[in-house]
Amino acid sequence: MRQPQPWVNEANVALVTDLYELTMLQAYWHERMQGRAVFSLFFRRLPARRNYMVACGTGDVLDYLETLHFSSESLDYLAGLGRFSHDFLRWLADFRFTGDVHSVPEGTPVFPNEPLLQVEAPIAQAQLVESYLMNQVHLQTVLASKASRVITAARGRPVVDFGLRRMHGSDAGVRGVRAYYVAGLAATSNVLAGQIYGMPVTGTMAHSYIQAHEDELHAFRAFTELYPDTTLLVDTYDTLEGVRRVIRLKEELGEAFRVSAIRLDSGDLAQLAAESRELLDAAGLTDVQIVVSGGLSEEKVAEILDRGAPVDGFGVGTHMGVSEDEPTLDLAYKLTEYEGVGRLKRSPGKATLPGRKQIFRIEQHGRALRDVIGRHDEEHPGRPLLRTVMRQGRRTPEGEASLDAARELAADERGRLPDRILALPAAAKPYPVEISSALQAYTDQTLRRLEAAEAPDP
Amino acid sequence: MRQPQPWVNEANVALVTDLYELTMLQAYWHERMQGRAVFSLFFRRLPARRNYMVACGTGDVLDYLETLHFSSESLDYLAGLGRFSHDFLRWLADFRFTGDVHSVPEGTPVFPNEPLLQVEAPIAQAQLVESYLMNQVHLQTVLASKASRVITAARGRPVVDFGLRRMHGSDAGVRGVRAYYVAGLAATSNVLAGQIYGMPVTGTMAHSYIQAHEDELHAFRAFTELYPDTTLLVDTYDTLEGVRRVIRLKEELGEAFRVSAIRLDSGDLAQLAAESRELLDAAGLTDVQIVVSGGLSEEKVAEILDRGAPVDGFGVGTHMGVSEDEPTLDLAYKLTEYEGVGRLKRSPGKATLPGRKQIFRIEQHGRALRDVIGRHDEEHPGRPLLRTVMRQGRRTPEGEASLDAARELAADERGRLPDRILALPAAAKPYPVEISSALQAYTDQTLRRLEAAEAPDP
Repeated sequence: MRQPQPWVNEANVALVTDLYELTMLQAYWHERMQGRAVFSLFFRRLPARRNYMVACGTGDVLDYLETLHFSSESLDYLAGLGRFSHDFLRWLADFRFTGDVHSVPEGTPVFPNEPLLQVEAPIAQAQLVESYLMNQVHLQTVLASKASRVITAARGRPVVDFGLRRMHGSDAGVRGVRAYYVAGLAATSNVLAGQIYGMPVTGTMAHSYIQAHEDELHAFRAFTELYPDTTLLVDTYDTLEGVRRVIRLKEELGEAFRVSAIRLDSGDLAQLAAESRELLDAAGLTDVQIVVSGGLSEEKVAEILDRGAPVDGFGVGTHMGVSEDEPTLDLAYKLTEYEGVGRLKRSPGKATLPGRKQIFRIEQHGRALRDVIGRHDEEHPGRPLLRTVMRQGRRTPEGEASLDAARELAADERGRLPDRILALPAAAKPYPVEISSALQAYTDQTLRRLEAAEAPDP
Repeated sequence: MRQPQPWVNEANVALVTDLYELTMLQAYWHERMQGRAVFSLFFRRLPARRNYMVACGTGDVLDYLETLHFSSESLDYLAGLGRFSHDFLRWLADFRFTGDVHSVPEGTPVFPNEPLLQVEAPIAQAQLVESYLMNQVHLQTVLASKASRVITAARGRPVVDFGLRRMHGSDAGVRGVRAYYVAGLAATSNVLAGQIYGMPVTGTMAHSYIQAHEDELHAFRAFTELYPDTTLLVDTYDTLEGVRRVIRLKEELGEAFRVSAIRLDSGDLAQLAAESRELLDAAGLTDVQIVVSGGLSEEKVAEILDRGAPVDGFGVGTHMGVSEDEPTLDLAYKLTEYEGVGRLKRSPGKATLPGRKQIFRIEQHGRALRDVIGRHDEEHPGRPLLRTVMRQGRRTPEGEASLDAARELAADERGRLPDRILALPAAAKPYPVEISSALQAYTDQTLRRLEAAEAPDP
């Protein structure tokens, strides 16, 4: 028998979860624990090669929370596992998320211990959503943060996503583009993502097209007949010979020549760009742009521009697509309050801050100086970043922010970051994140209460 | 307006492609180029920290090829891009894949320049499928290869996948488990993947469950009442205190105590496992197993066992889930033949071998000595690895291999690898891959023909 099709969709996404969420859910149901819990989604440390992260993916989380339910097929599968009671599964059939969500807007630069998102709901609900919520926010935050660095490196030149083929699966390919859109990329090669997010799609030809033709010039002729203003790939055999054939094509076509760019995909890109520019300019083709691709990282993009290469745009694939230098973030989703009482964890290296919180960004002359993490209801002169985006399972107006709004916000917030944080190398002095005195007092109080309760048994 | 839902499925997966596949497709259609092409999927170099890769994902590729079509919604979107003619889109509405596919069975260890898969079809068809085919084989091969190393490190102890929350998106979470199943993992925490692939699912409790209760012992009592044979997480506050509370629970429950294992998730896992074992044994709980998790890589798993730690199983998450040390493979899909004539690319560092090929594995006493890449139709004493899995767009019986068969094959083929290749450190002497004299002669001949055709224009 053939395996069932492994497509994730609204009907089965409730099962895109770690089993322990469901065993805990049944335990809470069984114990009639319905107290209100606050869970916080945050990371403890920046990856070594990041000075900031760009929060992303919370919009998709809201979609998930609004529609979360267990289909009868999902319930049948769970019944077959033999761990869930009939009564629990009947309760699960009516399960809906009815909690509140507070999050920073997508596109916001965030720092260690700051809640990207806080879920406030009956504990069973808040717990259940952990796995999928982390999966999406992790992916999109990692990729938006990486893309933000590539954009910095490109210094205003357009960056295009070429990553689909080596991104990790189709969901990463599609939602990654969502993160790229928020981060500010110009376009993507991924057609479905373009359709879904309304992002420009781009792409012209591969080496195989050239190779399938009699020779390179024949291929250029045939392709420009169909797509006069295309980008021609010139490095299949010999890059500068390829450029000379573009010039030959111009001689053949005269006024009808409308090729907009050439693409270099291998070799010493800075050197070849300079030599190609010279050949093109000498032939009067000053309007033909040069775009480069092939194994680019933000450091390689910066190096190409440092060498003064006349490059008009970058196609960036694999390295950005999996955030190759830092493919993960130690994102955590932790209980911080239950029934109005602060909770924390003291596992070595995994301590947490209790309660529902607010982030205050302190700015001067439009540049961010430092953040203060405080109690959610304290007064503070800084700009509060966390907003209520969902109330009782429904989006608030703030939760309806469009992807375009997130993109604009990301660009604006980037502009407020200190130069040393925006720079590619690791900042000698990290962005300061402080704990407010009110939150510190609450943390101390929670710790004392916990130590009393958890003293070794006599 | 809300964005359309970003779920990939059979109706839109045809658009999970780079735009250039479609612009080239229209060009081939426009030029009436219908010649038969051979494309080869291979990698040029092993990642620095890999001695072999485990081929995986070709089964999903066959599903894709069998059902590939453009829905009317997809065609409408393409029409709106303004680059595709009405006639072409009408032709695209009837597009089906009708080619042949030759691949190594899933689970086969593969080495540089060996075709994991060869597609033989009219060039437009063979080209179109590139992006999705690479996306899936890349993901699953990277993850199966990583998992194979973790299994080596665990020396027969069961390894369980805990990676979902930080794997790159839901498709990676699901299809990654497919790769893990082939590689030989014991179970997964991912419920949907368990349902789809019939793999055991596992998982019990998180720290938050402990924290939400009055104290740790209350949480242990409540959980074991519902799940008597569960695994208890003991490191929320203090690992050894947690173990002592498990022992206290045994004293309370007597004969009714059936806890099967404890889980350690932080701290010095080898040291804590040894101390926990001592406490448990002294209390007569010799049957209670110890499983460990928390930031494990194959090197950490090996180190824990090297230190003699009494660990019965490993839960491995993020590091394996994104193949953190080597998240990508330089997988390439290249035209190697068109209309019966060999093709190759000479871009620096990106040369290819022409024509349709076969891989021969030379073995002695059941262990692999070396591989020879030859012409597809040459006679050779080695064991041929490539099989025809699809003919004229339909699976052959060999293309129907089940996931269980792939898992068995992977285990068998692992057993044939030389010890130095199976070991975790980079092998001083890589596994030898040779080119047959017939393939070398064909390559030389193709190069000469190409040099004649591509001599610089006069």
